[in-house]
Amino acid sequence: MDTMKSIIQRYQHQRVTLVEAGATRHQSIFNGLKVLAGDHPHSQLPTPQVVIIHDAVRPFVEEDVLVRVVTAAKDHGAAGAIRPLVSTVITPSADGYLDQSLDRAKHRASEMPQAFLFDVIYRAYCQCSDYDMEFGTECLHLALKYCHTKAKLVEGSPDLWKVTYRRDLYAAESIIKDRISQQICVITDTKEDAGCIGFLQELLKKEIEHVKGTSVTLCPNGRDLQKVFQGDCYNFVCINMRSSDFQETSKLLDELENAAPSSLYPVAVVSVHFLDFQNVSFSERMKELKEMKDLAKEVKKQNVFLYGLLISFTQDNPQQLQENVRQGASIITSLIKDRNAELTGQLLVA
Amino acid sequence: MDTMKSIIQRYQHQRVTLVEAGATRHQSIFNGLKVLAGDHPHSQLPTPQVVIIHDAVRPFVEEDVLVRVVTAAKDHGAAGAIRPLVSTVITPSADGYLDQSLDRAKHRASEMPQAFLFDVIYRAYCQCSDYDMEFGTECLHLALKYCHTKAKLVEGSPDLWKVTYRRDLYAAESIIKDRISQQICVITDTKEDAGCIGFLQELLKKEIEHVKGTSVTLCPNGRDLQKVFQGDCYNFVCINMRSSDFQETSKLLDELENAAPSSLYPVAVVSVHFLDFQNVSFSERMKELKEMKDLAKEVKKQNVFLYGLLISFTQDNPQQLQENVRQGASIITSLIKDRNAELTGQLLVA
Repeated sequence: MDTMKSIIQRYQHQRVTLVEAGATRHQSIFNGLKVLAGDHPHSQLPTPQVVIIHDAVRPFVEEDVLVRVVTAAKDHGAAGAIRPLVSTVITPSADGYLDQSLDRAKHRASEMPQAFLFDVIYRAYCQCSDYDMEFGTECLHLALKYCHTKAKLVEGSPDLWKVTYRRDLYAAESIIKDRISQQICVITDTKEDAGCIGFLQELLKKEIEHVKGTSVTLCPNGRDLQKVFQGDCYNFVCINMRSSDFQETSKLLDELENAAPSSLYPVAVVSVHFLDFQNVSFSERMKELKEMKDLAKEVKKQNVFLYGLLISFTQDNPQQLQENVRQGASIITSLIKDRNAELTGQLLVA
Repeated sequence: MDTMKSIIQRYQHQRVTLVEAGATRHQSIFNGLKVLAGDHPHSQLPTPQVVIIHDAVRPFVEEDVLVRVVTAAKDHGAAGAIRPLVSTVITPSADGYLDQSLDRAKHRASEMPQAFLFDVIYRAYCQCSDYDMEFGTECLHLALKYCHTKAKLVEGSPDLWKVTYRRDLYAAESIIKDRISQQICVITDTKEDAGCIGFLQELLKKEIEHVKGTSVTLCPNGRDLQKVFQGDCYNFVCINMRSSDFQETSKLLDELENAAPSSLYPVAVVSVHFLDFQNVSFSERMKELKEMKDLAKEVKKQNVFLYGLLISFTQDNPQQLQENVRQGASIITSLIKDRNAELTGQLLVA
């Protein structure tokens, strides 16, 4: 309970009531329903017309399927998401031999979410046997058995799968990283000679889009970043034209801190510096690296991952410059994709 | 067929015969069995006692489960791997309502591999109806229906799952990356003052083991690397003590090329350089970076990913040195874990 309370507090959820779980799935669900029925002494919650039952272990549920099961439950008393079977289902005999194999085309996997008219599912649980309570797993079955309510079945998406095994955690992490990497905001510097920088910024945008098929927004400085934050953008590329000048990046980091974007996922910031390598001294370079590392360490506390990228600015060789920008775009997109916490503060070179 | 042939040639498989697939799963399997039965005009293959049927879409099959299904098939005529059901299985009515839900505890998912006495499965396929051929998916069912052979069911591991959806590709990639990151070989430099280097090498080994729980082998130079390659090691950390000296790393890269390790997965090489930052000039540093990039580009063709890591060597501050080595170890393990192709040739700093 303490863990759940701290999660609710941390993410400032306003409409969550915690109920103690039971020893089995059905007992836990029944405990939740009792609170909604007004049976609980401290409950102030009104009894709803429809309830949704969902597994936390299926974190990628979309609003669309919720709407569809709720609508179907209103019309038919009960509804649940289903998926095609991936493997054939068989019945083993007691001694471990094949007794029967079911026709895969005639069966479906029952998934969550499911929705019910409150009266239907509550009556079902109130009548339900001890055996059902202990060994049952399927709410649709209880509605059918005790209230003769035939659930409407709704096709769900593959993302409803149960995060069960270690491989599912890997898959979930990759899906999240993929989703939050789709949109990249490139903060552009408009102070300097517009021609050259404009060209570089457009080139970088084009190359990033080319690498990943992501959507890239150019956001000139002096812009309203609030809009970008509201759009759930987790990726920023900040272009600093003057050598060893973090001005643009610092400004962005300040704004990120003020906007307090969702701390659910780390925000990736790539600080890009176009540098003429011929004209930079080593001590300057090391000072820069030190600054980047310190800054990265600081903003990591706010769940911001800062990476540095130097793009070699070969004024006299446009072809080489284009190649460098292309390489820079590859590095940017791969930093954003991996979101590697250990590489924050590093200065990469393209 | 051309794609498959090129894969067989590339990985030098010696004992693979390709057979053209049919329009359905059962037709494809039958085509394979026919070749083994000697029905195929050009087949020189002897008819085996037992055949294993497996899905390529389950790439993580272990030898252990193969042995168990083959042994069971020898004794009982047929055998297949099973897994517990993750979701309840239901029967929908024709109009999309719940008809029946099956007791999850009484059913299992039928997975692959499956094994059969050749005569059993071949006879089953020869008698099998057009309907079975077209709509059936379960080989165990055919053995039961046409040869009255009750398959022995063998408990499989979770890794037998079918790589079906995009998320499964993510999971498969992570599982492979995890597996090939377990073992790290640290190539040590014994030319220089043994005391100090010995200490650094031991410290680095300890920190790497601490970060990841991986198994780290110290491998002094002048060693027999062949043994390491045979042990399927995909990760090398190469310590170069002299500043801007790639000697150890170059030697390792040569040996890797000669040993021609499996090209199935990229080999990660981290070239570690302990450097006193006070005493290095910028031009030297840039020269190094250029060398690292060129070298990385070159060895990438052999599927070797080369990364550079400078660890700041603060001779007068042992505590800072320990902290730097610790940071270096984190960077090394995260480079090995991500195996990011875009970051090859970069010089990271700890």
